[in-house]
Amino acid sequence: MKSTQILFRRVPHGLPTPDDFEIVETELPELKEGTFLAENLHLSLDPYMRMLMGGGRWGFRGKSLQPGELMVGRVIAEVRESKHPDFAPGDRMVGNFGWQTAAVSDGSNVDFRIAGEKDVPLTAYLGACGSNGTTAWGGLKLIGAPKKGETVLVSAAAGSVGSTVGQLARAWGCRAVGIAGGPEKCKLLTGEFQFDAACDYKAGDLAAQVEKAAPDGVDVYFDNVGGEMLDGIMPLMNPYGRIPVCGVLSQYNAGEGEEHGVKNTRLIFDKRLRLQGFLQSDYKAEWPRARAELEDLIAAGKLRYRETVAEGIAAAPEAFISMLQGGNVGKQLVKLT
Amino acid sequence: MKSTQILFRRVPHGLPTPDDFEIVETELPELKEGTFLAENLHLSLDPYMRMLMGGGRWGFRGKSLQPGELMVGRVIAEVRESKHPDFAPGDRMVGNFGWQTAAVSDGSNVDFRIAGEKDVPLTAYLGACGSNGTTAWGGLKLIGAPKKGETVLVSAAAGSVGSTVGQLARAWGCRAVGIAGGPEKCKLLTGEFQFDAACDYKAGDLAAQVEKAAPDGVDVYFDNVGGEMLDGIMPLMNPYGRIPVCGVLSQYNAGEGEEHGVKNTRLIFDKRLRLQGFLQSDYKAEWPRARAELEDLIAAGKLRYRETVAEGIAAAPEAFISMLQGGNVGKQLVKLT
Repeated sequence: MKSTQILFRRVPHGLPTPDDFEIVETELPELKEGTFLAENLHLSLDPYMRMLMGGGRWGFRGKSLQPGELMVGRVIAEVRESKHPDFAPGDRMVGNFGWQTAAVSDGSNVDFRIAGEKDVPLTAYLGACGSNGTTAWGGLKLIGAPKKGETVLVSAAAGSVGSTVGQLARAWGCRAVGIAGGPEKCKLLTGEFQFDAACDYKAGDLAAQVEKAAPDGVDVYFDNVGGEMLDGIMPLMNPYGRIPVCGVLSQYNAGEGEEHGVKNTRLIFDKRLRLQGFLQSDYKAEWPRARAELEDLIAAGKLRYRETVAEGIAAAPEAFISMLQGGNVGKQLVKLT
Repeated sequence: MKSTQILFRRVPHGLPTPDDFEIVETELPELKEGTFLAENLHLSLDPYMRMLMGGGRWGFRGKSLQPGELMVGRVIAEVRESKHPDFAPGDRMVGNFGWQTAAVSDGSNVDFRIAGEKDVPLTAYLGACGSNGTTAWGGLKLIGAPKKGETVLVSAAAGSVGSTVGQLARAWGCRAVGIAGGPEKCKLLTGEFQFDAACDYKAGDLAAQVEKAAPDGVDVYFDNVGGEMLDGIMPLMNPYGRIPVCGVLSQYNAGEGEEHGVKNTRLIFDKRLRLQGFLQSDYKAEWPRARAELEDLIAAGKLRYRETVAEGIAAAPEAFISMLQGGNVGKQLVKLT
C-alpha cells in the first residue's frame, strides 16, 4: 500500500513557502501482528505546526521537525486491514498520523475512537469536538474559570478554537466578545456563532472597540494571538482577570529580536492577573467529559462551526500558508479522499 | 495630643524628591467612645507607597493619594489611652496608621494584634513576620507551590520579602537562588540568609549567572522586579514554571511609554508558564497560619532578617527615596520614638 506524504524540507524564514515542503510517494511497511492499516480521510491544519517547523529557539517543547521528516498532524482515519486485536476494518478514529493519505499504526498514536452514536458530523472530531474543542473547553473552564455574568473575550474568534470558546461562554451564561479580522468574520461571530459582540482588529483602535463591546470590563481573555494585541487588552482586564494563553499566532513568524515587547506586564501585578499557557494534553483526563459536552451542544445545534476545506493532500502546504495569514474561516481541513 | 505627620504634597516625576512630601504638626481629635489613642513606635517603608503617590495611570487599585493627604503606611503602635472596649493601654498591634507619630483609631485599621508570647523582636512584625513575611509565604506557597527539590529564584532577594522567600524555600526543601545588586548583598544572601546561591545583577550577564546557579532550571521565579529582569529570566524557566508577581520595582518610576517591553511573553505559551499577580490581602484567611510558621522559624533562628533603621519621622521621606534606589539592606524602618 502506498501513502502520499508531505515532508518537512527546511526551516522557513518567517512565513513558510511551498518550497519548505516536499511531496513524496512512499510504500508503507507490511502489516505485522499488533498493527493496522488505515486510510486517512481528513487532515487538520493547525498553527502549532508552524512552531514544529521552526528549529532552534522556535522549537516546540524541544521537538522540532528535522528535514525529511513527515509533517505532524491529526487525521480522521478508517481501518482498512488489521492485525491488531483492538481495531477492526471500518473502525474510525482521530489519530496523529501526519500529513499523508494512509498510515500503519500500532494504536499508540490514536487520539480517540469515534463511536458514531451521536448526531455529530465526522469532520467535527477534528474541530469543534476534537482537539480544538477540548482546547477551548479546557482553557476556558480550567484556567479562565468564568462565572455566570462575566465577560469572556477571545482573539482569533472566527477560528475553530475561538468560535468554540465564544459559544461555550454563552452556554455557560457569560457575555461573549470576539476579535476577528474584517467585517465578514465579525458578522459570522455575531450571527452564526452567537457572540454578543465582535471587534474588527483591521478596522483600527481595537482597544476602543473592546471597551465598548465589554462595558463591564474583561474577566477572561482567551488569548490565541499574544504580542501587541495582548498588550492592548491588558489595560481592559478587570482585577483578578484570567488570561488562558492558548497560542501566540502573532509571534510564530517573528525572528529573533523581532518579537513584540509587551509593555503592560506591570498590570499583572496591579490588577492581580493570572496568565497561564496550556496545551490540551495537560488535562487528558478531562477529555471524555469535555467531548461529551461538546458533542451534545453540536447535536443540539448550539455549537456551530465553519470549515474551510482544501481538496487533496497536494493542496495542504498552500492551505497551511493561507491559514497562517488568516485566509481560513473556521477549521482548516484537507479532504484526502 | 499632637501627631507629627508626613503628608503627600504632589505627584513625583519619576523618583520622588523630598519636596514631594510635607511635614506638619497636627492636633489629633478628642477620644470618643469606641476609639483609642496610640503612640506609633516604628514605621514600615515599602515600595507600594510609590504607586500610591503616582496619580492617574500609576494609581494603585484606583486609590491614589490626593495632595494634602497623610502618607499611607503600617506602624507598630501601643495604646496609651482607650475608650474602646477591646483595646487597653499597653496593647500592641500592627496598624495602618500612616506616616505619623500618634493616631486615634476605632480599631478598623488594625492589621493584627501582637500577643508577645513568642521570642520574636517587636519590629519583626513589620517585616519577616508582618506583611512582608505573609507576602513571601503566600506568594511562594499559594502561587509558587514549590515541590521539594525544585529550584526557587527570587529577585530583590536581600529585601525583606525576598530574603524571607529564600529562607522559606530552604525550609521547604528547595534550592534557593537570589538576585541582588552588589557583592555585599550577595554575600548576605549566601551567608546570613542561607541561600544556596546568589547572582549579582550589577555584575553583568545575569542570565548566565542564573543558569549556573540553577543548573536544573528555575521552577518558581518569585518576581519583585518585573521588566527587563523578568524578560531575561523567562527563557530559564522550566516547563510548567510558576511566577508569582509580587511587585514591579523596576517599573514604578517609568513614565508612560517608558516601560520595558517584555519580548519573551511567547514563552508563557511555549513553556506553559503561570504568572500571577497578588497582594497579601488576597488571602487574609491564611495569615494566622502563615504568621505562626514565620514566628516559629524566627524564634528558632532559622528565619533571619536585616533592618535599615532611620531615626525620627522627619527622616522618613529621605529613607523612602533611598529605599527606592536600593539603599536599604533588609527591611526599611523608621524609629519614631
